[in-house]
Order: sequence, then structure tokens, then C-alpha cells
Amino acid sequence: MALQKEQGDKFGTIGLVGRQGKPLVADSLRRVARLILAKGRGLVVERASAASLKGIEGISVCGREELGSLCDLLIVVGGDGSLLGVARDLASSGLPVLGVNRGGLGFLSAISPEHIDSQVGGVLDGACYAEDHFLLDMRMRRAGKQLAATPAMNDVVLHSGTMSRMLEFALYVNDELVYEQRSDGIIVASPTGSTAYALSAGGPIMHPNLDAIVVVPMFPHTLTSRPLVIRGDSEIKLVVKEATTTTPQVSCDSQIDLDLCVGDELIISKYQYPLKLVYPVQHSFYESCRSKLDWASRLGNSSRSL
Amino acid sequence: MALQKEQGDKFGTIGLVGRQGKPLVADSLRRVARLILAKGRGLVVERASAASLKGIEGISVCGREELGSLCDLLIVVGGDGSLLGVARDLASSGLPVLGVNRGGLGFLSAISPEHIDSQVGGVLDGACYAEDHFLLDMRMRRAGKQLAATPAMNDVVLHSGTMSRMLEFALYVNDELVYEQRSDGIIVASPTGSTAYALSAGGPIMHPNLDAIVVVPMFPHTLTSRPLVIRGDSEIKLVVKEATTTTPQVSCDSQIDLDLCVGDELIISKYQYPLKLVYPVQHSFYESCRSKLDWASRLGNSSRSL
Amino acid sequence: MALQKEQGDKFGTIGLVGRQGKPLVADSLRRVARLILAKGRGLVVERASAASLKGIEGISVCGREELGSLCDLLIVVGGDGSLLGVARDLASSGLPVLGVNRGGLGFLSAISPEHIDSQVGGVLDGACYAEDHFLLDMRMRRAGKQLAATPAMNDVVLHSGTMSRMLEFALYVNDELVYEQRSDGIIVASPTGSTAYALSAGGPIMHPNLDAIVVVPMFPHTLTSRPLVIRGDSEIKLVVKEATTTTPQVSCDSQIDLDLCVGDELIISKYQYPLKLVYPVQHSFYESCRSKLDWASRLGNSSRSL
Amino acid sequence: MALQKEQGDKFGTIGLVGRQGKPLVADSLRRVARLILAKGRGLVVERASAASLKGIEGISVCGREELGSLCDLLIVVGGDGSLLGVARDLASSGLPVLGVNRGGLGFLSAISPEHIDSQVGGVLDGACYAEDHFLLDMRMRRAGKQLAATPAMNDVVLHSGTMSRMLEFALYVNDELVYEQRSDGIIVASPTGSTAYALSAGGPIMHPNLDAIVVVPMFPHTLTSRPLVIRGDSEIKLVVKEATTTTPQVSCDSQIDLDLCVGDELIISKYQYPLKLVYPVQHSFYESCRSKLDWASRLGNSSRSL
Repeated sequence: MALQKEQGDKFGTIGLVGRQGKPLVADSLRRVARLILAKGRGLVVERASAASLKGIEGISVCGREELGSLCDLLIVVGGDGSLLGVARDLASSGLPVLGVNRGGLGFLSAISPEHIDSQVGGVLDGACYAEDHFLLDMRMRRAGKQLAATPAMNDVVLHSGTMSRMLEFALYVNDELVYEQRSDGIIVASPTGSTAYALSAGGPIMHPNLDAIVVVPMFPHTLTSRPLVIRGDSEIKLVVKEATTTTPQVSCDSQIDLDLCVGDELIISKYQYPLKLVYPVQHSFYESCRSKLDWASRLGNSSRSL
Repeated sequence: MALQKEQGDKFGTIGLVGRQGKPLVADSLRRVARLILAKGRGLVVERASAASLKGIEGISVCGREELGSLCDLLIVVGGDGSLLGVARDLASSGLPVLGVNRGGLGFLSAISPEHIDSQVGGVLDGACYAEDHFLLDMRMRRAGKQLAATPAMNDVVLHSGTMSRMLEFALYVNDELVYEQRSDGIIVASPTGSTAYALSAGGPIMHPNLDAIVVVPMFPHTLTSRPLVIRGDSEIKLVVKEATTTTPQVSCDSQIDLDLCVGDELIISKYQYPLKLVYPVQHSFYESCRSKLDWASRLGNSSRSL
Repeated sequence: MALQKEQGDKFGTIGLVGRQGKPLVADSLRRVARLILAKGRGLVVERASAASLKGIEGISVCGREELGSLCDLLIVVGGDGSLLGVARDLASSGLPVLGVNRGGLGFLSAISPEHIDSQVGGVLDGACYAEDHFLLDMRMRRAGKQLAATPAMNDVVLHSGTMSRMLEFALYVNDELVYEQRSDGIIVASPTGSTAYALSAGGPIMHPNLDAIVVVPMFPHTLTSRPLVIRGDSEIKLVVKEATTTTPQVSCDSQIDLDLCVGDELIISKYQYPLKLVYPVQHSFYESCRSKLDWASRLGNSSRSL
Repeated sequence: MALQKEQGDKFGTIGLVGRQGKPLVADSLRRVARLILAKGRGLVVERASAASLKGIEGISVCGREELGSLCDLLIVVGGDGSLLGVARDLASSGLPVLGVNRGGLGFLSAISPEHIDSQVGGVLDGACYAEDHFLLDMRMRRAGKQLAATPAMNDVVLHSGTMSRMLEFALYVNDELVYEQRSDGIIVASPTGSTAYALSAGGPIMHPNLDAIVVVPMFPHTLTSRPLVIRGDSEIKLVVKEATTTTPQVSCDSQIDLDLCVGDELIISKYQYPLKLVYPVQHSFYESCRSKLDWASRLGNSSRSL
């Protein structure tokens, strides 16, 4: 799974994408751009991010869909949200992606702004490895016809549309009924997504290299529902049932939303193309958990803690 | 993974084991024994269970360790507890095992007493399939020397020995530190064990065919700990740390207990031999969950439930 | 808190309310109406429910707002949802209310349809007691002006409007900051509501006679949030903060919804008038929990359960 | 509940208690002692702590049981564990107690070592308030006879003695059966204890001024058990049942342990005397929660967190 040391040399042309309209993102974009140019690499910027780099010479501009064919590595400056969008759009191109964090905690965006020079520089010089993160593939069917399909990096969420209104659905795995449930909804998450929304809902943390999918109920009308972890090659089917009282929705990575009707089916399985996420050599998933989930802090008021 | 239809014929000699001293178990043992004999199969009974079958002719008696070489199928009458013991003792023999439930809910013992005639009969006639359930292999090391080793079907639990007294330990996965923790203990469970003790402690349900291990903290002194699911081929290391105030213990399947000292290490990985668990064709894991975990029952007092 | 035995005699005039358009509700309404008339009591039916009682003689009809002054006891046939609406509308009248369940599980509607004759009959004869259930009072303020106010029997829920989109708010108790939080929302529940939506979200069960309010976060963006139980005489303030990305809403008993803006404040405290809920003498809260929350069912697959 | 400003003057004689054998505790003890003497107040030290104050003049020494009658305020240097012991021993004397933290997080010990001069000084000058924290009263009965009785500040825990072995018990509140349960045990906690062991076990946080008791099951053999909050004036009875397979124990504040037999009863109710806990004026319960439970930290990897 590791990219070889020499691969740094292969990163001849670097693509750059950054979220618009955030001064801190623009700062980091400029810093990364200068670093790439100083190292004599080619630099291609997504059109939507080009304004942030005005005045820097030697930059080509292209559309997002061209990045896959033009670049050897894509650097995304922003938060995990920016990276999720890139993942859905570009995973199929096989382009390796490196995240520079300018948003929230940044589980996926491995490099924090103060380490741009050392760590982005290190990655360009080959001090990095790549990890395949699988995406989910969501297809929506109505009356036997597929109406929509989209990948999702973190999660596919079927929910009632209006919070605290009832959704009833049936869950099948590999065409076997798991349960019918009334709840606010259900989260289907990849290992990558297990540290995002699914975690807030009580799901377990799954190591990124685990080949598994987790299904987490949202406020179920029964006390016996629990998160369910199944093989990564499973096919999940969700069917909206009659008792549903609202316009339910499906939400992919909390970024793409579609309205549903009673009878609609969602088919969720592993997406054909993984995202090749690049990390600096010093990156560690468990270290991320310790620092970002604050695993070190302890409770007091207990004779046990003395 | 399915045994073929014809395999029923291969079940020429059937082994029989049942928990001692329980009249209901003895009843079911006798019923199963008569069924086996009526079908003209050979019948070998573990010595410790033979007293329950007094007066039935045509039965051979042997020690538990001989069952693997003498039989084609082992039937265990009791609860999941009996089956856990058989699994640890006989998994290495490759002997397929069928459970007849006479204990609690019986997630593993697929056949309930009222279905002995139809379902055990069916299995003997080949209406069955087998599923490999992997066990955990626990090795205990002190000062670099291995002091003990045992398989565990459900779980390996490191705990403080005295409830609500503090245990401090470090958790490593593949020699990488995950965290140091103060808690009452930690549960390392196989998919099979995910519906047992680990579930009471807030762990997810894992499908039996998932190649994964779950690690569940027990009353951790931090609010940020969550169950962690890792690949089945991981090597887990637990090290007892200095702050521990009691004599900690390791417990395998809640049946085997060993005392530990500060500095002791537990190495936990997948056991070399899976247990080949036999189910009647109509068995379904999700159906077991629905009936045994009572997934159908619903909450009231809510406008949502009308 | 108990109504005296003789109080049955005081139930001279009985009001009757039932959810429209449900044949099973109409059946039970007719049964209850005949029972009241057979016992020689006066019977007043809410106008909206009168159609279900066509052909039965001796019934007066009135609007919901008149029931309080015309009746000594109100019987609500439906589910807990019907009872929640009645509670909000009529708690201030002090009218005692008895629920006959025709909906879901019915934590509040103490009498199930098959026990109408014996138990409703018993209540009319005085075999009953009354329990005060306090309601919450929700007032919504924008720029210092109160825009809306409503009681809520179960809960007041501030949520992001669109599921899995971010809401940021501050929580104050008695004008002291508790925390600022990013989450899908927050549930403020009475003891009555603690067995409804708040329970699905991980809140504790509170005995109906406890003078306390519980605050339960919904999918918080932190792992350290926990349900918080405070005194019943507390004043809770929720303020919608700038980072909110949607049109948040407040929902009372999942029946009344209002849109909010950044800066809006919700003030929640105990409502001036409790609902006087009537129960047959044999009713017990813990027995309801045992049967309706299924406290008796047990997990299997554990040597512990043998 | 607030002590008046002038009360500082009433703190004429100060008692001092500190955990033995910890150099950091001894340091803080000496610092507090010098501060008291510098302010011209009388100083009485518990005999067991006197060695730490060798060489400081003007100190009287007494036994713990005399502190109540000799002092106007007791200062406890250590962790919450030290304070729990003092609370059980001295609550009945009505002596106000101030905690200086030298242990873990210190929910009860309000003053951290670096603030001794300003905050302990402030308290001595009257910049303080007192809050009554109620204790639990645990009585153990066998065959109708009371065998033991002790107060507990945080919690009374009935558990199986050997972790992951089965305990079966019945829970009654005010002589009404709540449930029979199989589990590792059950925690009965005061509001003070709700941020200690009960919190690790999934219980809610209760404000210290709430008049309530929480009952939290430990790894129950059913998925439907939830924490239960009842009135502070409730009488709780726990009865050890036949199916118990070990020597169960009751543990008070994790400091006092008693062995139990099948049939033994524990009666738990509010203790007659509250502990009068003294806080510097700037102390706030919610601020403690924010800093000690780390309520501010946030999850990443989510488009919601951008």
C-alpha cells in the first residue's frame, strides 16, 4: 500500500484546489503554490481556486474534471468537507490526493497549516505513503428504475427529512432482511466515515484499512437497536415503508441531498474506485485519534483516579 | 462455506456432549441420542455426559480429546457456555459442531429443544450448512517469557480484578500505540463474541462472517473512548501499567481466569483453527438477532409512533 | 396526589375526544360512550369527534375549549399523540384526563382497548388516582420581543431543520452558560417526555413524580457531551449562534414547529398548569416500563447467562 | 444556601487534613498551613497529617473525630478520594469542608494548587459560598438483621465481585418492584457521584443541587435497560437473587467493600446529614464541567464542521 520512496520524483505536476472565499485558505494556497514552484514542479490550479493565486507566475488553470489527467498529485487546501467533494469527483481518476487542513479538526486533511513547509515539502520529496480509502456507491431506484447514483466518501444517510418526524424503512443486506425500523433515519458509513457523523450517532471507530461498512440507527423507536458492522463487499438495500409521514431524504456526505417517496429503494455498496489518500510518513491513524478525539483526557471525582 | 447436501451422509458417527446435572439437558440428550440411533448412525458420548444416557444401548464412551478423531459431527446440548468450552477444546480438530440450546438465549446453539426432532433430524440428513467462526488466541507474557496461552471463542477481557478499582494499561495494535487508558478493563471480542459481553458494554454487532476484531473499553475514565473495530489479522498487545492498584486478571470467555502483575503483556490475535459451526438450513443470523435481541419491539409515548 | 375513592361520584359529566378517521378509534369511542351513558353520567363530545358517535342518543357536543368548563373528567381515545395535544390545550383548565390507547405503545394512555369495560368502568366508579404531570413552557424571542409561546408536554426540541446540517447554539441554565455546542440539535424534556424522544437519544428515564428537566444533545460534534438533569424550577435559555448553516427550527411534542433565525432565543421553564392524568388503581409506572420497554428480555451467547 | 460575606470571620479555627506519603500533598499542606497562620487563625491538624507539617509552629493536633467540634472550617488537601472519606466521617458534624486538589481532576476539590494563595486566602476572608451535597445511607440486612451501615458520598455499587461473572438482583423503589436484572452490577449515585463512576457507566450528569438519585445498570444482560432517575427521598432496595454465581459485593465510594450472600438486602436512601462543601465565589459547576469534562473539544472529518 505504501508508495515507494522514489515516488516523490513522480509527483512532477501538482494540482491545487482550495475552498473559495476564505482568507486563511487563500494564504495556505499561496504558500503551497510557492513551495511547489520553488521545487521546480509543474503546477495546475482548478479554475475556481485561481483567483486566490493572482500574481504568482507559472501556473496553469483547468477545470476540476481535467485534474485527473493533468496531474500526478492533487493537493486540497480546506477542510475535510472540501476533500469529500474532491473524493466523489476524482476518485475514479486514480489521482493521489493530499489534504492541507484549513477547516475543522481535519481527520482526512493530514497536514496542518503550520507544517506546510516541512510536511508538504517532504511529501513532494517522497516522504509519504498512500492509503486506499474506499467510497460507497449509492443508487436510488423508483419503481424499478434507477433515478440517481453518486459515490459518497463518508456516509449515505437516509433520514426523515423533517427532524423528529417518523421514517419507516426496511434494511436488507445481500437481499436478506435485517430489520424494519422506525427512527429518524439510518447512517451507512465507510471506515473513513466512521469518525464523522456515524461516531456522533454512537457508531464504533473503524480503522481505515478495515474492509467493512457500519450501519448506525438514528434515534430508533426501540431500545434494542445497535450499530451493525458488515463486510465491505456487502450490498445494502434500504426501502422506504408506508408508515413514513414526511418527505424522506437521502444525504451523501451531508453535501448531496435527494428527496424520496414511499417505495423508493437505495442500493449501497462499495464504489468501484478507492480514493488514494497521501500522508506524510510521520502520519498515524491512532495518533490522529489520540489528538483529535482527545483520548488522553480523564475524568475526576473518583477515588479510582487518585 | 456451505456444506453440500450430501454431507449429511458423511455424518456417519456423531459425538454427543451435554452439561452435567441439569435434568432438562439430560432429557434433550436422551432425545438426541435416540434420534441418532434411530437413523442408524454411530454414537459416541463424552465420558462426563454418559450418566445421562444410562439404559440406552449402542453408545460408545470416550474422553473429550478423542471426540475429534472418532466423530464426523459433534452435537453439544446445553447453552452457549457449553459450546464455548467445546470450541476452545476442539476447534483445532476441525470437527463440525452443532448446538442444541438448553441454556439462555443461545446465539450459537441454533436449535431449540422443541425442534430437536425436525431440525437435528434435518441436519443428520444433510439439511445444513457450516460457518467458520474464528477464535482468538491469547498468550500471556511476563518478563519476556510466555506463561500461558489459550484460545477464546467470544472474548478476552483484561480487567481490574476487583470491580470499580483502577486498572491502567496500554493498548497496541500491530506494535503501534493506540492509547493508554484507565478503566475497569477492556474487552477484545471476535465477531461471535460481539453479541455477548461486548454488546452489554456498548460494542457494535459484527456479522459472523466479518474478518474483524472489536476492542471495547469498560467504564473508561474518559468520555471520549469508543469501541474500535480493526482487521481480523491484527495483533493486539495489552500491557498492564504501574498505576494499577489491584491484582488485574485476564478472563477468556468468562470461563478461564489468570492473575496478572504490572508489566505483564497479553498478545491477542486470530487463533489458527476456526470452529466449524453447523446450522440447519433455515438458520439466519439476522433472524436470530430479530428474535433474540428483540429488534421488533417499539417505544411508545410519542406523536411519532402514531 | 391520589383522588379519593368517592371522587368517582364527582365524575358526573364526562368529556370524550378521539382521533378522527381511524376505524379502531371510532369503535373504542362508541364503546366508551355507551359505558358512560349506561352508568347514567352526562356525556359531552368534542365536535371533531362527534361523527364517530352518530346514532347514539343523549350526547351533547361542544368545542375543545369548552370541555374544561363543562366536564369533570375527559377521556381521550387515541395514542399518546392525541393526549399530548389535549394536554397542551387543556392543562390550564385543570380538567383531569384519562387516556384510552389506540395508537402505539401508549405510555400515557393507561387503558388498553380490551380493558375498556373493566378499567374505564372502574375509573368512573372511583377506582383511580390522579398524578400531576408538569408541562414545559416554551417562549420564542427575537430581538428582545416574544414572538411565540406554547406549552409542551413531552419535549421542546431545537434542531437544525435539515438533518445532518449544522446547528450551533449556546445553552444557559438560570442565566449561567452551560456550553456552546455544534450538533444536530438538543432535546429539553419533562419527566413525562423522558420515555419518548429523549430516550431514543440516550437520555435517562425519569420517574413522573420527579421535579426535574433533562437536556439531551442530538449527535453532538464532541464525544464528551452527556445528558444533563437539572431542577424542575430551572429556566433554560437556548440561543442560536452565527455558525448555524440552515434554518433551524423548534419543535414542541413533534407537533408544533416554528422557524428560527440566528440570534433567536428560546426560554423554557415549567408551565404554570400541570396536566392531571388519571390512572386506574392498578396502574404502576414501573410495570409500564417493564412491559412497554421490555425490561425482561435477556441477551444470550454468554457463559454468564447459563 | 450561600454563606454570607461576614462568615469568613467565623472561620476562626481551621482544620487541616492531607493524604499521607505524597510529597506534592505535603507541599500544599505546608503552604495552606502558613497561609492560615499568617492570617492569625487557629490551626488544628489531623494527627495522621501532622508529620507533613513538622517545624511549623502554632499547630494543634487532634484525631479526625475531634475536628468537627474544634474547627469552623476543614480544609482537605488531596484528591476527591480524600474528600469522600472525610465526607463519610464528618458530614454528621456539620463542619464546612473546602477541598484543595492534589489528585486527579478534582470535581469536588475546587481549588487547584497554583491558586492556593489567592483562593484559599479569599475563602478565609469570606469570599466563598457553601453548597449542601447530600450523601447516601447504605444499610445491609441479612435475614432481617442489619449487619452494616455506612454513608457514601458518591455511590453505592452492588456488583458481582468477580468481573464478568453473573449477578442477579431485584431492584425496588419505595417497595415497588422496578425490575429483576442480570448484569455485572448496579450503581446507585447521588448528584455528586453522577460525575464519577456513574458517568463512566453511561449515567446522566445531575446538577449538585438536584434532589434526585440515579440508578445505572452495569453491563446488563438486556439491551433495554437505561439509567433511571428518581426523587431524592426515595428508598431503594436491592435484593441478591438465587442465580448469582459468585460472592457479590457492595462498594461505597469504591473505598468500603462488604461481601454479600444470596438473599441479602441493601437499603439505600438519603443520609441524614449533608456535606457542607465550601467553594470560592468564582466557582461554577458548569465551568467545572466545561474544563474537566472537556466540553469544548470538537470532532472533525465532517462537512458539518466547516
